[in-house]
Amino acid sequence: MQQHTGNRPRVIIVGAGFAGVFAARELAGADCDVLIIDRNNAHAFLPLLYQVATSAVESEHIAAPVRGIIRNMGPKAANLDFCMAEVRGVDFDQRLVLAEGQDGINLELPYDYLLLAPGSVTNTFGTPGVDEHAFSLKNLEEAVRLRNHILRSFEAAAWTEDVEQRQHKLCFVVVGGGPTGVELAGAMAELMAGALRRDFPRLGLASPCVTLLEAGDGLLPGFPEKLRAYARKKLTALGVDVRVGAAVERVTHEGAHLKGGELVQAATVVWTAGVKGEPVAARLGLAVAPNGQALARPTLQAQDRPEVFLAGDICRAEHAGRPLPMFAPPAIQEGRHAARGILRLLGGQEPQAFRYFDKGMMATIGKKAAVVRLGRFSFRGLPAWLLWLAVHLTYLIGFRNRLFVLANWAVDYFLSERCVRLISRRNPLS
Amino acid sequence: MQQHTGNRPRVIIVGAGFAGVFAARELAGADCDVLIIDRNNAHAFLPLLYQVATSAVESEHIAAPVRGIIRNMGPKAANLDFCMAEVRGVDFDQRLVLAEGQDGINLELPYDYLLLAPGSVTNTFGTPGVDEHAFSLKNLEEAVRLRNHILRSFEAAAWTEDVEQRQHKLCFVVVGGGPTGVELAGAMAELMAGALRRDFPRLGLASPCVTLLEAGDGLLPGFPEKLRAYARKKLTALGVDVRVGAAVERVTHEGAHLKGGELVQAATVVWTAGVKGEPVAARLGLAVAPNGQALARPTLQAQDRPEVFLAGDICRAEHAGRPLPMFAPPAIQEGRHAARGILRLLGGQEPQAFRYFDKGMMATIGKKAAVVRLGRFSFRGLPAWLLWLAVHLTYLIGFRNRLFVLANWAVDYFLSERCVRLISRRNPLS
Repeated sequence: MQQHTGNRPRVIIVGAGFAGVFAARELAGADCDVLIIDRNNAHAFLPLLYQVATSAVESEHIAAPVRGIIRNMGPKAANLDFCMAEVRGVDFDQRLVLAEGQDGINLELPYDYLLLAPGSVTNTFGTPGVDEHAFSLKNLEEAVRLRNHILRSFEAAAWTEDVEQRQHKLCFVVVGGGPTGVELAGAMAELMAGALRRDFPRLGLASPCVTLLEAGDGLLPGFPEKLRAYARKKLTALGVDVRVGAAVERVTHEGAHLKGGELVQAATVVWTAGVKGEPVAARLGLAVAPNGQALARPTLQAQDRPEVFLAGDICRAEHAGRPLPMFAPPAIQEGRHAARGILRLLGGQEPQAFRYFDKGMMATIGKKAAVVRLGRFSFRGLPAWLLWLAVHLTYLIGFRNRLFVLANWAVDYFLSERCVRLISRRNPLS
Repeated sequence: MQQHTGNRPRVIIVGAGFAGVFAARELAGADCDVLIIDRNNAHAFLPLLYQVATSAVESEHIAAPVRGIIRNMGPKAANLDFCMAEVRGVDFDQRLVLAEGQDGINLELPYDYLLLAPGSVTNTFGTPGVDEHAFSLKNLEEAVRLRNHILRSFEAAAWTEDVEQRQHKLCFVVVGGGPTGVELAGAMAELMAGALRRDFPRLGLASPCVTLLEAGDGLLPGFPEKLRAYARKKLTALGVDVRVGAAVERVTHEGAHLKGGELVQAATVVWTAGVKGEPVAARLGLAVAPNGQALARPTLQAQDRPEVFLAGDICRAEHAGRPLPMFAPPAIQEGRHAARGILRLLGGQEPQAFRYFDKGMMATIGKKAAVVRLGRFSFRGLPAWLLWLAVHLTYLIGFRNRLFVLANWAVDYFLSERCVRLISRRNPLS
């Protein structure tokens, strides 16, 4: 069945993230066959990973099976198909995607047009000890792993007699003051001041021990100055020790070692300080920027390969002379634009240049506290938080997921309760 | 902190299953300190494991964190505490539980009274190949593993060109015609005829390929004859190939080999044909029956150790001259009775003999189809199914879990949809 037997041209989309899914929606019902390839069988809503890590929502509720997404598009999506496989290479001359399917099946999948949207991975910038000692937050498994670890640290601390050792287990460092670091640090502080303080009365937790380290001169680079100051003030009010100008030189089991020699003690260090393009781009021989992003033409076509498009975190696209950040909104717009470019080629037209429509940016800090820049306007506090909730529910795929996440948020809001306090055990064989 | 510093006697409960949790509720507010030990931080509602395995409910929704259970009992439960640890041994003379906590902490936990309720494990009866080739369904991890495997089998089949190989991947065998086997086989057939048939239109699934093998002369031994015949008829109507008198001799990657030489081909074999007492009972040197259950006095006290009680699947208790089955209702009643025995000893009285109150038994087959024996009455079909739903929701711990499971059931009922079709990836480090 792996041969493409249709008479219509075939588009292969690599990656079922924001870029891939929104491209697929654009291509549903068009006069071509579309195959989405992903190593997972589900699209994951990565902006809420930090909520999985802090016991607020179930990992299943921020994941939407790709076959379900296709089904929910209705009959017009009959030209869409899915393949759960790991992409091993691309033969650009023969126009073949080489992939390994389930049970080790070798797949050679011919395409007429290819959209590469494999996303990004954590960038440690070569900082010693990060790979061995720090947690990361780039996919569902890492989020569940961090959740398990936070809860297990408290279970361990509860039975540690030595006061210093106990305190060490209860101290957490988040490295990186971008949206992910800010949201995670705030949610961790709320988890510890709420549900975990009540779960562990004998520990007598006075305030959470969460430190947020940012190498630059302030949190949330790229946001308006007022919002950056507000975020810092709010995080501090939640009990987070915010430290700017604190560059991490290495990570050990003792904690984060700063440039200058200071040690910020913590048994747990979470690294959210950087992302880079999926290494697959370089492996495929595409021209890449130093951060691993593949260089694209203004039309999002790969250089020298007009039938290959790039979208999402893997794609080096610019806006107002600067590279776009690796956020969801650029990925969504690029995915749509790349799909439209393919449709234009199918119709005998040339693709148009991509122009990013900057709607703005947002980050949440805690209950009733968020920062939003909307075009030229910026606001914060409750209205920003409500808008953050609405936007995230809107882009979360699946009615049921929205309902369940909203229910969890309501419990969290009214009871300061985090319900998903489950330490899942290692599964040796799955 | 691991020393018991209180002046009151301490009760240690090993195991937070039905027996342990219901015992703890009985002891909340009593004049003793109670410590619950479990290797997991959550009580798992095992009767719904088959629904986790068939993508119907989230594993998180049938788990209730033990610390949350304690908190929800209110202020009177201030005498209850929890320790997440693996029990390594018991020094019965010194009255110490030896356990390994998180981070490898060695714990020596003194007790005055001990309630052992560690549950049961799968019994393969030494059948060759079961450990290597068959799936099991005794805990959350195994349920998630089976869910992942079923979904992955379909993803693999969708890209397998060889027709025979493809068909083999789509064939499933369930061994064991007790409630677990019947419920799993029915739910698998419904999953495949509903959500998966729609997810994989290109596979052109006509009917599910699920075979249920039972060595005895009929399904659901112990149920009234009418209900047993009904269960078989209903399963067959769902597309399950029910075979009785089919004893499995060994399991290989080809499928289940029956006594007599026949091979029932299937890439996936699930073993639900037996349970036995947790091996910890024998390791502790307790007198055990051939099925691993520890022998108990009529009061549920261990032989020769009046301060040690047994409850749940580990406990060999009798009713009407026959050993009680390893189901939830006996575990709940035994847990309560053992706790009352401890309270009597604390009050200077002798424990009373345990008497099982047989409310009945139930099993579900599929949508609107279940069998229930209630005392002397037996019924089936829609009323039985509704009662099954009500009883399971009642004993599921946690308001939120009930709400979410009910929401999932509603989606399943009205849309024949299974929402949790997520293949979770192996987490190498958690």
